[in-house]
Amino acid sequence: MLEYPETPERIFTVEAVTLKYGRGALAEVGLEARALGMDRVALFTDRHLAETELVATVQEALKQAGLDVVLYDQVRVEPTDQSFQDAAAFARDGDFDGYISLGGGSVIDTCKAANLYATHPDDFLAYVNAPIGRARPVPGPLAPHIACPTTCGTGSEMTAAAIFDLTSSQVKTGISHRFLKPSRALVDPATTDTLAPGVIAATGLDVLTHAIESWTARPFTSRPYPENPAQRPPYQGANPWSDIGSLKAIELGGTHLPRAWADPDDTAARDALMFAATLAGMAFGNAGVHIPHAMSYAVAGLNHGYVARGYADEPPMVPHGLSVVVNAPAAFRVTARADPARHLEAARALGADTSNLPATAEAASEALAGRLIDIMRRIDCPNGLSALGYGEADIEALTGRAFQQQRLLAQAPLTVDAELLADIFRDAMTYW
Amino acid sequence: MLEYPETPERIFTVEAVTLKYGRGALAEVGLEARALGMDRVALFTDRHLAETELVATVQEALKQAGLDVVLYDQVRVEPTDQSFQDAAAFARDGDFDGYISLGGGSVIDTCKAANLYATHPDDFLAYVNAPIGRARPVPGPLAPHIACPTTCGTGSEMTAAAIFDLTSSQVKTGISHRFLKPSRALVDPATTDTLAPGVIAATGLDVLTHAIESWTARPFTSRPYPENPAQRPPYQGANPWSDIGSLKAIELGGTHLPRAWADPDDTAARDALMFAATLAGMAFGNAGVHIPHAMSYAVAGLNHGYVARGYADEPPMVPHGLSVVVNAPAAFRVTARADPARHLEAARALGADTSNLPATAEAASEALAGRLIDIMRRIDCPNGLSALGYGEADIEALTGRAFQQQRLLAQAPLTVDAELLADIFRDAMTYW
Repeated sequence: MLEYPETPERIFTVEAVTLKYGRGALAEVGLEARALGMDRVALFTDRHLAETELVATVQEALKQAGLDVVLYDQVRVEPTDQSFQDAAAFARDGDFDGYISLGGGSVIDTCKAANLYATHPDDFLAYVNAPIGRARPVPGPLAPHIACPTTCGTGSEMTAAAIFDLTSSQVKTGISHRFLKPSRALVDPATTDTLAPGVIAATGLDVLTHAIESWTARPFTSRPYPENPAQRPPYQGANPWSDIGSLKAIELGGTHLPRAWADPDDTAARDALMFAATLAGMAFGNAGVHIPHAMSYAVAGLNHGYVARGYADEPPMVPHGLSVVVNAPAAFRVTARADPARHLEAARALGADTSNLPATAEAASEALAGRLIDIMRRIDCPNGLSALGYGEADIEALTGRAFQQQRLLAQAPLTVDAELLADIFRDAMTYW
Repeated sequence: MLEYPETPERIFTVEAVTLKYGRGALAEVGLEARALGMDRVALFTDRHLAETELVATVQEALKQAGLDVVLYDQVRVEPTDQSFQDAAAFARDGDFDGYISLGGGSVIDTCKAANLYATHPDDFLAYVNAPIGRARPVPGPLAPHIACPTTCGTGSEMTAAAIFDLTSSQVKTGISHRFLKPSRALVDPATTDTLAPGVIAATGLDVLTHAIESWTARPFTSRPYPENPAQRPPYQGANPWSDIGSLKAIELGGTHLPRAWADPDDTAARDALMFAATLAGMAFGNAGVHIPHAMSYAVAGLNHGYVARGYADEPPMVPHGLSVVVNAPAAFRVTARADPARHLEAARALGADTSNLPATAEAASEALAGRLIDIMRRIDCPNGLSALGYGEADIEALTGRAFQQQRLLAQAPLTVDAELLADIFRDAMTYW
């Protein structure tokens, strides 16, 4: 369990990204870019999206507003240090005064990184999270960036982080600083109308996990009151603000993910799932995520042979949402000990009938994990780590890598040592 | 009932004020002022607060951060055009690069107005809402402003409006523009520890009414899709974002207002009520308020002889929260027709047992109005308009004045003509 400090933190902050949400919002990107004073913009996307109407819509809207637009479609899905640096080189050479990102988390994160290195050049590891990088604080604001998500998943449009694979050491890490937050999020759920069910599943399960992790993150009052209030961590732990977004995202996601997955014509479900993704982004961008995400970096980092449904066009890899959710039921079974009532409430929000359950760790653990597993099964999610090709022999390596993610593990509602982490990996092998 | 347009609005926006919330937050005002680049600040407050430790804390924190501070303590509670102009003259002459407001809605609103006229001088009526003023759009951003509320009521720290009495015509009106939103809200619930029960009642009932009004405001989709998306109204109507804050504020307020009123030592209740006030501010600053607020301007504008509990030190007047809530049960009895299910949900959030009620206008109307009246009685709120000295003979005058508030009435979930308004005034005379 966590030890509580004598003088606990009593303060939390909310720094929300300005949001425009709704069908048709994408066509207003020119107006938004003008309002932010952009003249010459880099439009980041990936090569699949580059051939779609979405990119054409954005290009047209920007041109109609009188902006110069240069397209960058070389974003890698699940980016690497190299793909970040390629994007940064493009940004540096292009003399842009604004950035638009149109895509999933990979595109938005790549755009954040490119904007950072073009605006405040330094060697690549300077800004990367410690201990892998030097975690240099970003020295000042970046150029304006409008993030336009096209998957109902990452919530990256609301967060201050950019995640990538450091290829040389097969580890996922990232860059985190409040100046990385996009200036605006333009969330148009129509962008998800053509997503394959496999992509809806992977990104939607990411939403659920974001929301449940930020809801169950260590309470902000479990940190000590800071000696220097200017140096509060960007991820504060669960607080009354993040709780509202987390719980609503769990409710919306639990109801609408199975519907959005089952029926591509159920636009109401896709709209609600997209809104849930944005809410979850607000919440975990404020509170932080913990064990399932720390584990996911190992799961994705050690497996480069998996081809997920809906991702056949990409190099083999475990899509982020799947690499997270396969750990989630096992992780929540353990975190339930820290606060059974809160885990029970998450289960209720996810759609479980908890009305007759006692607020014990055991009941909460079963209710939340059980309900999440139900949803995973219904939408054809891989059945735990074994379905991704992992087995008992991999647990040491997975644990070693995940245990490096101390920044994330420190957000858990209980102390996570290597042994506990190994137990969770073991439990995550097969769920049904 | 409302007529729905053929091409309805599908987009809503969220432009939240950066928030720092918690006990002790006020001591960090120097840090916040520095982060906003302030050097020489005007500190707005009222003459009662000027003698309290709160103002001393803020002055000390600002001085320790190396800022020049000039105090303005001449804010009038329930401000007038004259008091706004006095404050603006002070601001113009002071050569400030930043503003801090410490007080209730009157102080924060006065600071917004002073900042506006000092930054973008024009004659007073230029920026005032039409038809009373000329509603000139604010031409650009104002100087940075940190709003520090000291009552758990107005939520003005989150909104884009400044309200005042136009003395010459005994009418309440205001100035509304997104540039009036404070740069930051510093919400320290410890500021409410010394508030008298009468002030907790008046400001807390304002919170409940804000939240229920924004929850029951016309849906954003009942407006037509705008020809020029740059000219969306700042108050959009109820939408999925405002709904979350509204409902949570109703829940928190309904539970904690009676507790905060009954026991000055129940700090948890004051903390929760203060958070509810901020949430309600976010919600109604985004969705808008409607009939009870439109009526309140007439109620406050025509009565200058009332002395409310907790306000004996002020010139006689109806405190804003009371002038609003006395209309609320009667107004919601009528708006329930527009969306019974939504009004029933508000009643549930406010603590009513609605589990066996049908979603009819009659049931919803009784449940919501009944529960609100319960809370009003419990905390010694005046029993309707008659308790403020109004009678049948005043209904014509009240209706005439309230009907001028078309900007607010247009936010109602049904069409409000003068006859309906008169009926609501009549029903608001006595509740128990």
